[in-house]
Amino acid sequence: MPAFYQPPHRILLGPGPSMVDPRVYSALAAPIIGHTDPDFFGVLQDATDLLRYVFGTENECAIAVSGTGTAGMEAAVMNFVEAGTKVAMFANGYFSDRLTEMCKRQGAEVARLEKPWGEVFDDDEARAFIEREKPQIAAFVHAETSTGALQPAKAICDAAHEVGALTIGDCVTSLGGMPVEVDKNGIDIAYSGTQKCLSAPPGLSPLTLSPRALERLRARKTPCVSWYLDLKLIDAYWGASHRYHHTTPISMFYALREALRLCKLETMEARFERHRLNHRAFVAGIEALGMRMHVAAENRLWTLNTPVLPAGVDDAALRKRLLEEFSIEVLGGFGPLTGKVLRVGLMGVSSQRNYVLLLLQALETCLGGSGAARAAEAVYAGG
Amino acid sequence: MPAFYQPPHRILLGPGPSMVDPRVYSALAAPIIGHTDPDFFGVLQDATDLLRYVFGTENECAIAVSGTGTAGMEAAVMNFVEAGTKVAMFANGYFSDRLTEMCKRQGAEVARLEKPWGEVFDDDEARAFIEREKPQIAAFVHAETSTGALQPAKAICDAAHEVGALTIGDCVTSLGGMPVEVDKNGIDIAYSGTQKCLSAPPGLSPLTLSPRALERLRARKTPCVSWYLDLKLIDAYWGASHRYHHTTPISMFYALREALRLCKLETMEARFERHRLNHRAFVAGIEALGMRMHVAAENRLWTLNTPVLPAGVDDAALRKRLLEEFSIEVLGGFGPLTGKVLRVGLMGVSSQRNYVLLLLQALETCLGGSGAARAAEAVYAGG
Repeated sequence: MPAFYQPPHRILLGPGPSMVDPRVYSALAAPIIGHTDPDFFGVLQDATDLLRYVFGTENECAIAVSGTGTAGMEAAVMNFVEAGTKVAMFANGYFSDRLTEMCKRQGAEVARLEKPWGEVFDDDEARAFIEREKPQIAAFVHAETSTGALQPAKAICDAAHEVGALTIGDCVTSLGGMPVEVDKNGIDIAYSGTQKCLSAPPGLSPLTLSPRALERLRARKTPCVSWYLDLKLIDAYWGASHRYHHTTPISMFYALREALRLCKLETMEARFERHRLNHRAFVAGIEALGMRMHVAAENRLWTLNTPVLPAGVDDAALRKRLLEEFSIEVLGGFGPLTGKVLRVGLMGVSSQRNYVLLLLQALETCLGGSGAARAAEAVYAGG
Repeated sequence: MPAFYQPPHRILLGPGPSMVDPRVYSALAAPIIGHTDPDFFGVLQDATDLLRYVFGTENECAIAVSGTGTAGMEAAVMNFVEAGTKVAMFANGYFSDRLTEMCKRQGAEVARLEKPWGEVFDDDEARAFIEREKPQIAAFVHAETSTGALQPAKAICDAAHEVGALTIGDCVTSLGGMPVEVDKNGIDIAYSGTQKCLSAPPGLSPLTLSPRALERLRARKTPCVSWYLDLKLIDAYWGASHRYHHTTPISMFYALREALRLCKLETMEARFERHRLNHRAFVAGIEALGMRMHVAAENRLWTLNTPVLPAGVDDAALRKRLLEEFSIEVLGGFGPLTGKVLRVGLMGVSSQRNYVLLLLQALETCLGGSGAARAAEAVYAGG
């Protein structure tokens, strides 16, 4: 008979999940009520209001899909991409490959504009690609977890709207840590996950639809190939009629609501500045160790950092030592970045001065060098 | 700014979610670790071992899909039903209608054998239907949450195997409360939910595949239309290679593992007997009030009870009073049973003598009559 499970202590500084605030754990463990309970509809309404604030949108539809971030990605694809849909894909990392695969499974015609992992598309490239392809959907990854690069959204969305296309933006690793600004950027279908910069456990996927996307959804004649992820039906459950669709993950919604409430309590402005500062301090420490970042300075995420491993360092052995000696989880690169970079998440609760200092000291101990934490402290002191 | 959410006290005696054991809440709120952490793979392995025990199977593949029960249903359909697949559907309630809809969205050819809601198919009917239709998939709902009826599985599975078909069995409202016996019955693809008789919060869908189903899955040439619910990929993550697929809902897996551990601690035999006894006591009380059950005695679920409302009783008003005066949630019927029955779940932690007695007394207070709780007590005393 297995015993009650007690997880080991971990400091989660990988690409997600991130650390979770104790208040979110308290919310998670509150007694459940039913998914048709009037009180639970209040939880959903609060979540919608708070999601609008965090996404930077006045969209009517701001919900969470009952699955992890990948379920949100698939809901975006399945509800807006059908057999024969022309999709323009900005392909510069693993998650755009995953989006491509999902679109192909729907029978879409996918045109890909490729860049090496870690680079991003400038405004002119984005516009030219969309003008050339004239897609019905343009899809991009706002914050690429596999590379650490931020893809600016506005030029893509503007160009897409000029040719009548909708835009899908993957905001899994930006929402709650960097400005997503759904309305200002014009992202029609934006989705995220709970376990990155929102710092709730994984299990839900926040998603919002612009009025333009909602209109196209409601006008769609063929049924969505998925019933579970059918946004028409999910939207009807969230809406005034509260029409039964499926039993929602009650506890996860408690946790999401609390995590979003903590975003509002901190304010997004302060939250973004915190993520930016901890990122800058971490980079200063990395550079003091003689290492460099994989992504060019102007394209770096504040949330997911990809320092390049010094030549000769065994990625797996280093991560094993960080985990076993320091209880720190960071992950390595994969695909073309296998063995070449670390992936260090400073997201939500994990974006803290103390964790930055500790990780830099641990890296210094493992890799040699000196002055990493001191260089970070200089940034915190206003350097 | 909304306050920290404190849910109202509810006694959950509806069709799910059910009450949750405090130990499961403790497990749920334990600090998360990563989905690629070696320790977390131990959690998955424990879950597999315990799921085998609870499902009654030696299947290699016993996992949980990262969504609620409906996600398990859709995973079963999308991985085994393609355009043109011939499906024989035993249609006697809402969840077989949902299965039908999902199969149709895959482009399947669905033959339906229909019965009024609350009735079940006998062995001869089941065999004749399958021999006539010669399907590739036969699908049935083992425990129909919309009606309270139990569909025997063995004759369906035997007949299906004789014509080379696989069987899909929806065990959402039976797993953990009534014998499912996947191996003895021959159910090839069985799925359930966490929030019914397992008494964990909603958010995962336990699923198991027979060797026959696993073989057909692995031989499948076309990709599953869903990437998130692609069982080949999910199985590879659970398997020895632990190939990355998606970030699993860590906290929910802690909860599921603990809920399954509590099943083993109690033993399935004792658990089934507890559900049977509380069901019998509840029925005795209902009959003492002069009411009758919608489902014939030999076909009744122990887990989900459908007493028929006396003529003239307003379903919604009764349920509102139960909720507001007694904090008890029960739900009403829907579809052809709208306004005609209550749906009373006595599942998992909710299947308790104290709850049965309290609900019967509350019904007596609301509807009039006498002796309901006393009649139940007579059953507990060995009557």
